[in-house]
Amino acid sequence: MTEKQRIGIVGGTGYAGAELLRLLSAHPSAEVIAVTSRGDAGTPVAEAYPQLRGVIDLDFVEPSTDNLADCDIVFFATPHAAAMHDVPALLDAGKRVIDLSADFRLKDAQEWASWYGVEHVCPTLIERAVYGMPELNREEIAKADLVAAPGCYPTAVVLGFKPLVEAGLVDFGRLIADAKTGVSGAGKSLKPGFLFAEMQESFKAYGVAGHRHLPEIRQSLSAMAGTGVGLTFVPHLVPMIRGIHATLYAQLHSADCDLQSLYESAYADEPFVDVLPAGAMPETRHVRGANMCRMAVHRPGGGDTAVVLSVIDNLVKGAAGQAVQCFNLMIGADEACGLAVPGALP
Amino acid sequence: MTEKQRIGIVGGTGYAGAELLRLLSAHPSAEVIAVTSRGDAGTPVAEAYPQLRGVIDLDFVEPSTDNLADCDIVFFATPHAAAMHDVPALLDAGKRVIDLSADFRLKDAQEWASWYGVEHVCPTLIERAVYGMPELNREEIAKADLVAAPGCYPTAVVLGFKPLVEAGLVDFGRLIADAKTGVSGAGKSLKPGFLFAEMQESFKAYGVAGHRHLPEIRQSLSAMAGTGVGLTFVPHLVPMIRGIHATLYAQLHSADCDLQSLYESAYADEPFVDVLPAGAMPETRHVRGANMCRMAVHRPGGGDTAVVLSVIDNLVKGAAGQAVQCFNLMIGADEACGLAVPGALP
Amino acid sequence: MTEKQRIGIVGGTGYAGAELLRLLSAHPSAEVIAVTSRGDAGTPVAEAYPQLRGVIDLDFVEPSTDNLADCDIVFFATPHAAAMHDVPALLDAGKRVIDLSADFRLKDAQEWASWYGVEHVCPTLIERAVYGMPELNREEIAKADLVAAPGCYPTAVVLGFKPLVEAGLVDFGRLIADAKTGVSGAGKSLKPGFLFAEMQESFKAYGVAGHRHLPEIRQSLSAMAGTGVGLTFVPHLVPMIRGIHATLYAQLHSADCDLQSLYESAYADEPFVDVLPAGAMPETRHVRGANMCRMAVHRPGGGDTAVVLSVIDNLVKGAAGQAVQCFNLMIGADEACGLAVPGALP
Amino acid sequence: MTEKQRIGIVGGTGYAGAELLRLLSAHPSAEVIAVTSRGDAGTPVAEAYPQLRGVIDLDFVEPSTDNLADCDIVFFATPHAAAMHDVPALLDAGKRVIDLSADFRLKDAQEWASWYGVEHVCPTLIERAVYGMPELNREEIAKADLVAAPGCYPTAVVLGFKPLVEAGLVDFGRLIADAKTGVSGAGKSLKPGFLFAEMQESFKAYGVAGHRHLPEIRQSLSAMAGTGVGLTFVPHLVPMIRGIHATLYAQLHSADCDLQSLYESAYADEPFVDVLPAGAMPETRHVRGANMCRMAVHRPGGGDTAVVLSVIDNLVKGAAGQAVQCFNLMIGADEACGLAVPGALP
Repeated sequence: MTEKQRIGIVGGTGYAGAELLRLLSAHPSAEVIAVTSRGDAGTPVAEAYPQLRGVIDLDFVEPSTDNLADCDIVFFATPHAAAMHDVPALLDAGKRVIDLSADFRLKDAQEWASWYGVEHVCPTLIERAVYGMPELNREEIAKADLVAAPGCYPTAVVLGFKPLVEAGLVDFGRLIADAKTGVSGAGKSLKPGFLFAEMQESFKAYGVAGHRHLPEIRQSLSAMAGTGVGLTFVPHLVPMIRGIHATLYAQLHSADCDLQSLYESAYADEPFVDVLPAGAMPETRHVRGANMCRMAVHRPGGGDTAVVLSVIDNLVKGAAGQAVQCFNLMIGADEACGLAVPGALP
Repeated sequence: MTEKQRIGIVGGTGYAGAELLRLLSAHPSAEVIAVTSRGDAGTPVAEAYPQLRGVIDLDFVEPSTDNLADCDIVFFATPHAAAMHDVPALLDAGKRVIDLSADFRLKDAQEWASWYGVEHVCPTLIERAVYGMPELNREEIAKADLVAAPGCYPTAVVLGFKPLVEAGLVDFGRLIADAKTGVSGAGKSLKPGFLFAEMQESFKAYGVAGHRHLPEIRQSLSAMAGTGVGLTFVPHLVPMIRGIHATLYAQLHSADCDLQSLYESAYADEPFVDVLPAGAMPETRHVRGANMCRMAVHRPGGGDTAVVLSVIDNLVKGAAGQAVQCFNLMIGADEACGLAVPGALP
Repeated sequence: MTEKQRIGIVGGTGYAGAELLRLLSAHPSAEVIAVTSRGDAGTPVAEAYPQLRGVIDLDFVEPSTDNLADCDIVFFATPHAAAMHDVPALLDAGKRVIDLSADFRLKDAQEWASWYGVEHVCPTLIERAVYGMPELNREEIAKADLVAAPGCYPTAVVLGFKPLVEAGLVDFGRLIADAKTGVSGAGKSLKPGFLFAEMQESFKAYGVAGHRHLPEIRQSLSAMAGTGVGLTFVPHLVPMIRGIHATLYAQLHSADCDLQSLYESAYADEPFVDVLPAGAMPETRHVRGANMCRMAVHRPGGGDTAVVLSVIDNLVKGAAGQAVQCFNLMIGADEACGLAVPGALP
Repeated sequence: MTEKQRIGIVGGTGYAGAELLRLLSAHPSAEVIAVTSRGDAGTPVAEAYPQLRGVIDLDFVEPSTDNLADCDIVFFATPHAAAMHDVPALLDAGKRVIDLSADFRLKDAQEWASWYGVEHVCPTLIERAVYGMPELNREEIAKADLVAAPGCYPTAVVLGFKPLVEAGLVDFGRLIADAKTGVSGAGKSLKPGFLFAEMQESFKAYGVAGHRHLPEIRQSLSAMAGTGVGLTFVPHLVPMIRGIHATLYAQLHSADCDLQSLYESAYADEPFVDVLPAGAMPETRHVRGANMCRMAVHRPGGGDTAVVLSVIDNLVKGAAGQAVQCFNLMIGADEACGLAVPGALP
């Protein structure tokens, strides 16, 4: 068995941080030794997250380099524009970093600045960062010292389009991703729209004019396509906590193709992508709590429009679980280590 | 004031029936005198629907012609393939009929039979029936003695696409309707998938291979387009009771058009269609309990894809409310009579 | 018909304010002419509450005496400790006031100060204020110029206990009220515990050590009992928007009593209290959106413990609806005016 | 490590069965070799429970003795009155049985028959069955060949009252348990009341006149008290899937007692009972997915009424988890084996 890695988590009070704690507490090669929080330093982690009483026996500490000095690997579960300030020193100190925030995902620092509204402070590290989607970059992740874990929408959308785009079967200029998310994707933000009384029994689109995950998705799909893709991306908010359902539309060059076989072979060896049988329709609860992307591919009426349904748990395969998957690759463990437990249903 | 109409409701135990009772109980020109139910005949209506205690003081009766003999107008809120058996005798007896079920919506009896799995028993009445969407057929509805009230999805989708299609601005062959509904659209069906424990905290697509509302939508859009349209329609189930959100995608012939003005003028005179200001995004709760379709039109990134967001309450503008709107037209009352009360929020 | 009253609403951005707007917009004797909001002055009311687009055509104004100068009656839907500052001047100006906040509910200014953490600024008005529960104080309300509309929990609990306590059938020292509420009772507070992701799929008690509605309930029950009552009150938070369910326990002096008759006769003439048939169990959805308290009384196992189940919509009979009921009494209108529309179910 | 036990699950399509599969699939000493279902025999388990795709690779089989012949231990997750027919033969064949249904919980066969509406077919086995609540019967469970796993309500209520009753501090004649459950406690029953559209946004009491868990709770509490206890038990249905919250009321003989210390010492050594710090209030989400009972004890206003708040996940500590805890005791494994993973929150 791999030697135990000493783990630090920066930004442990958010939902992705809590999910990292849940997953890593049961991981045989991980020992969480430091969890930081600017606001809650000094209080027990299990006070913020009572489900961890008896499981995690640490107090939150201030997010300083000193407090992370004994760590082998540091996970960032911070809002955007935080990690980029602290990562350089950690890398210099020989630590490896897995960043769940957006700071190192976009390869173009200018584009990053335009979407996130602030200049990037270490653009040279962007090149060094490896995009942490194992289905795209498995080997690079294994060797990386800085991994940029993907956003939740990009995970569901990119995995869903990947076989179609790589096979060159569709019109790259007219991709549509109609995506729906549970509210935990927004983190623990104190905004009126995320109050129970404002969300329950309602459904809405948001960010139609432009969402930060759009350039991230476009970057991955364009790389696959070998050309810039045209993507319309409309996210929606579902009155539920967890889950993303992406409904993807693409125009086939020809109706003469076996999409089911295409998808099944594309993902035959992937431990965390599950192509459902023909005709099936995945539900977000089928992946709740699990590090898994389940998908189905349809061609309604036998026509030339491909419809892909792709579901993930935004906090697991869309965040903490995928980060642990990267961690496993980085330390040479079984990629599924600590990620095999199925989710609870109902 | 219009003389009071004596109203019968056939199939009063379902959700559309309950909603008719709610709306008609407060309508100054309506007096509900008979509510039928095969299973609950003899028991008080208010036992099935305790919110109506003190409001509706009737017992359910068997659905027979005799029990409807004193009615001026009969609403059907039955499952499909029921109304077609009883409507002919009622019309012969001089009653006017508003059918909320699917029986008289499709103009092609063969197509109807193929989607509903049974032969139509009075195909000649199909021609006579007027499709009850006032925004399409106001004058015909006023004179009709048989109105086929539209389905819930068709209401949201057809109203949403109408200005674009009528103006001929989009590629008719590539319309996409990604629609999401609360569960009450399925009625009170005792199917496992509609149990709370199976729906809560989950989201899924269904009917991707073909949904009965597809031909109904296609029929209306094709009539507007003057040619057969190509439509991909993917319905989804949201963990909420009421509400439909249709996200519509169409490819513009040119990016040089003012969609906001187009929509505002198209619906300037419609009492129950509300075009939101540019940039807005409607939420289903904004129409909960109300006979209203609110919509917004977007062109993400200023490109050539139009995105329309259209919301209704499936039981009101998508069923009972629209039926009452037709009723008002038929009796010469103000179209908004009994429909002006706003919904409750939160 | 009663002459139209010109209405002002102070604190119109909260949920009780929105519900007042919904109810008063359909009330034949009310015309809302001013809605105040410190934060949103200058913006349209219908922007904050899109369900009111086309119904309320006012902008929010600053909460000043000038802006309320033309009002006959002013409703306060403010947080506690606001109305007491503004009410004296309004009364002096000859306006009548219905305060939905807590400022004038407790008759003991010292007790008020100890629960609300601030001194009362106009204790002399406390005496003048009439507690606005028509089932207790109908005549006084009609003549009042200052009405203190009851809290939501007190409405459900006091109405539920009233027949038992007035008949002197129970041990006054051991009353238990186990109450459950939807989250809208907390208003639009931006607290983490009211986020969707923190409330959905969870249930909890809160305020076990002491809740502000405890002294208010105790005050009413003690007045009925003619002696101080002993009350244990435990509130709980249900993952739903609207509704209060109070489960009340009292120890009967004797098991030899007909509680069903007692309750039915106690409330025989009340338009907004509905005693269900023996054995029934009310659901909060049976009163959703309606100004109604439905209740049932049980004696499990035929023993000497009475169990009363009492439900209201916290925003209607527990707030805005009850305030409109008081308004009707104050202006000499039918008590049910504008309150007859049943709620929507499902 | 303990040798792997070969496990059979009878009634694998229900929620308790699914939860057993989830827990046992990750248990180092268990290998599930047979899962029965009368209705679904021949179809893959993972078709009914897609979250188990890739985890459980078995087909459902008919529930026959033959199909369970190779099992060491058989779990029953059947509706009541099923296990009692099959258990005798399995015991005769040398298998050990853990019955999650109600068949062997009540020690009085007559009382069982009166509550379950059918005669018990093997009353002699009732005596042999050990009630599977480790906090009451740890040693007996370890030696048992037939364990009757407790009901969900009894687990939350009995553990909550236990320290008070065993210490003899309260009036045994006036115990009140106001309990609230998520809907999965009702199993996958196709009853209208469990439809999403009938449950969402509503809260209600049920079974006030008498619930089957009442005699079970009374049996345990009376055994502790050494005398028959008087218990009023009112269950309620919460619009959520999982979780039980019991609010318990008892009248203290004296207000002079340290309940916090009493509870902390009573449960100091229990791995799956967690007494929260003074003043805390547990939420059902704090135990979601986890085999844990968390509780807090209060004395509101310092008076003589004790209020205990006790939460469990009805499918875990209230069903499958507790059954696995018994299984661990029976095979001599660590009691916490396979049960240590914390639940996911949010």
